Amino acid sequence: MNAVLNPKRTVAELKELRSLTADENGAQRVAFMPTWAKARRWLRSKVEEIGAEVHNDEAGNFWATLRGESDKALLIGGHIDSVPNGGWLDGCLNTMAGVEILRRINTQYKGRPPVTVRLVDWADEEGARFGKSLFGSSACSGNLDMKEARGLKDKEGILLPDALKEHGIEFEKVKDSGKELKNATAYLELHIEQGPVLLDLDLSLGTVLGTFGVERHAVTFRGQAAHSGSTPMNRRRDAFLAAAKMSAEIYRIAELSNGGVCTIGSCTTKPGIITSVVEECRITLDQRHLDAEALQRMFSEAKSASERFAKEGNVTVSWDRIWQIEPILFNDDLLHFCDEAISETGAKPHRMPSGPLHDAAEVARSGVPTVMMFVQSLHGISHNKIEDTKEEHLEMCVTAFDKLATKAIGWIASKSDS
Amino acid sequence: MNAVLNPKRTVAELKELRSLTADENGAQRVAFMPTWAKARRWLRSKVEEIGAEVHNDEAGNFWATLRGESDKALLIGGHIDSVPNGGWLDGCLNTMAGVEILRRINTQYKGRPPVTVRLVDWADEEGARFGKSLFGSSACSGNLDMKEARGLKDKEGILLPDALKEHGIEFEKVKDSGKELKNATAYLELHIEQGPVLLDLDLSLGTVLGTFGVERHAVTFRGQAAHSGSTPMNRRRDAFLAAAKMSAEIYRIAELSNGGVCTIGSCTTKPGIITSVVEECRITLDQRHLDAEALQRMFSEAKSASERFAKEGNVTVSWDRIWQIEPILFNDDLLHFCDEAISETGAKPHRMPSGPLHDAAEVARSGVPTVMMFVQSLHGISHNKIEDTKEEHLEMCVTAFDKLATKAIGWIASKSDS
Repeated sequence: MNAVLNPKRTVAELKELRSLTADENGAQRVAFMPTWAKARRWLRSKVEEIGAEVHNDEAGNFWATLRGESDKALLIGGHIDSVPNGGWLDGCLNTMAGVEILRRINTQYKGRPPVTVRLVDWADEEGARFGKSLFGSSACSGNLDMKEARGLKDKEGILLPDALKEHGIEFEKVKDSGKELKNATAYLELHIEQGPVLLDLDLSLGTVLGTFGVERHAVTFRGQAAHSGSTPMNRRRDAFLAAAKMSAEIYRIAELSNGGVCTIGSCTTKPGIITSVVEECRITLDQRHLDAEALQRMFSEAKSASERFAKEGNVTVSWDRIWQIEPILFNDDLLHFCDEAISETGAKPHRMPSGPLHDAAEVARSGVPTVMMFVQSLHGISHNKIEDTKEEHLEMCVTAFDKLATKAIGWIASKSDS
Repeated sequence: MNAVLNPKRTVAELKELRSLTADENGAQRVAFMPTWAKARRWLRSKVEEIGAEVHNDEAGNFWATLRGESDKALLIGGHIDSVPNGGWLDGCLNTMAGVEILRRINTQYKGRPPVTVRLVDWADEEGARFGKSLFGSSACSGNLDMKEARGLKDKEGILLPDALKEHGIEFEKVKDSGKELKNATAYLELHIEQGPVLLDLDLSLGTVLGTFGVERHAVTFRGQAAHSGSTPMNRRRDAFLAAAKMSAEIYRIAELSNGGVCTIGSCTTKPGIITSVVEECRITLDQRHLDAEALQRMFSEAKSASERFAKEGNVTVSWDRIWQIEPILFNDDLLHFCDEAISETGAKPHRMPSGPLHDAAEVARSGVPTVMMFVQSLHGISHNKIEDTKEEHLEMCVTAFDKLATKAIGWIASKSDS
């Protein structure tokens, strides 16, 4: 029997999953909910057909293992969970491409590949129900903030630990899943781009350099409420005006940062009535860059700008950090293999950062050499039912990702030998 | 018995009213509420002591009348209602100065002045409970929008017509109060400035030229929600960025408008989450000017600016008018008398517009020659318990306002003769 990769089968399986777990508004595979559990059972049956060993770890991550000559393991990761009303590819493309690659390897090596090959379906990458993404992978990497996670509630007020219990997961033990990474020697993840970069460049595939570092802050200006009719312009201490001026400047700073992005996603005003000068204006700022120094420069320039406009407007400004993460850079050798795999599939290689975070970032943080491959997204949009990728690109990415897996196995095997 | 005006008595009576109707958070005389009714009973007793005829009109305005040789009437107006947690002078200074002037005139003319003199305490100037100011005066002037007013509800869901009924007012007849203005020949109103202009100029009193025209709009920008990490800056359609840029420009337009003001009091963002580019940003804009043409110029320049920044940011913008009123200019002869009265009190006359609306605007709209006098506000703040005016300025304004009343009576009498 020939070891033949069948990318068309992956596309067919993605459609099968869609018909099983999506409605007219999109994918409904929210983690720790019944439709997600259904998708997981379907996935398990696919992997069991191949003959892989399967189990769930202490954090609810699902593992399918083909034991190899060496214990050193290649990990291929994805997540079958989605946001509510999500797209049909985000997360599950990775998982189903991984299933197809396990099939090919199992057939080729008659169940005994040179190194161990494992597929992992991370639990709750999206964080859609409890507002905290990368649950399963951060538990496994050891970075999960247990104190914060213990108190997370969904909209109905159900605590995360209680929701986990319903799926057989004991919250206090989730970090025991870290042992799964013991022999991990390389981690690969395929993902739709979720942005318009490859589309704009008319490219099908990209090699991901790493994930952006993120600085998230709330910036609050405080002035003085005053009557909109009786207060001359030169006597006002207008918190909104200072925030508006700073905002335009912060966007300019990002544009000049050589690859960084920034977003002001929310602006609230108090008292917030039409007849009063704004006393308090709070904006949320999300800044991202692949280069740690450039990110710190964006942050400090934004802070200086806020202080300049606050002074100019006779208001005060304060910054509160909401969250931050350093940039996470992927492995040089694996980046090189990813470029080669793309070239050998007939596409033009292109290196790019990832703006969104992925489970791959958690694995890389834990010290496992990691790389991701991106495939073009139509419309540059995800987390939406209109999310889509051309079928020829889907097939192409499965082929390229499989070539990357082969290169990674060779690389791991050569390490094991030495 | 000498006809002696006693401004110190006015200050004492204002303090008496405060002890009767304020708590530690400020004045609590919200119209159509028990404390307001209590203040009104107290006012009625003060006026009955003088010997004036009293009655409430169909809109709940309280009238105290000294019948004169001529039916032609001088009206002195104020409002004893306040916002919740209000200042001790806003509205009731006018009313209590009017009471003192009635006393002086009654004594001087032994109950029969040359023209009829009337004090009116307007019902619900502030609109604090039902969100619509100038209720009593706009009913009387005929400008009240009956359809809108019929549907107004307070926070508890009580309809305005039902609240009025509890105070003996039949909603459908409130405009019958218009007959009170039949013989009105001049209308005078004294008010605290509620802004910092006289304070900044170190002046005690001002002659009010009229009330600002107002244009109120909601301005809504619409772009496209997009992931804060995966969307390059040049691919975004950011509704907040366009609004922020326009806002700074709109303030510049007001500063260059020669006396106009503008306020962006509220800014809301959708979806309003830290990880998404803003799809929809709505700001409220309040623009004011004493000159109708200048106001229209401010409005159309702001609109052009919004369209320019919308185009630049690849978003759309739409304007929805919330409310407008034309500038209302006061009577030239009365302006002149007001200047004279201020001079004769030993203060320097100064002419200025009123940013806030007042009952005087409604009376002027109905065709009665009108003027207002302002007295300096400390801190430039009202609608707050810290609202205050120096006692020497309070006494001075009662004296000057009384001189203005004398001049107005002479003016009306000379008209009656001709």
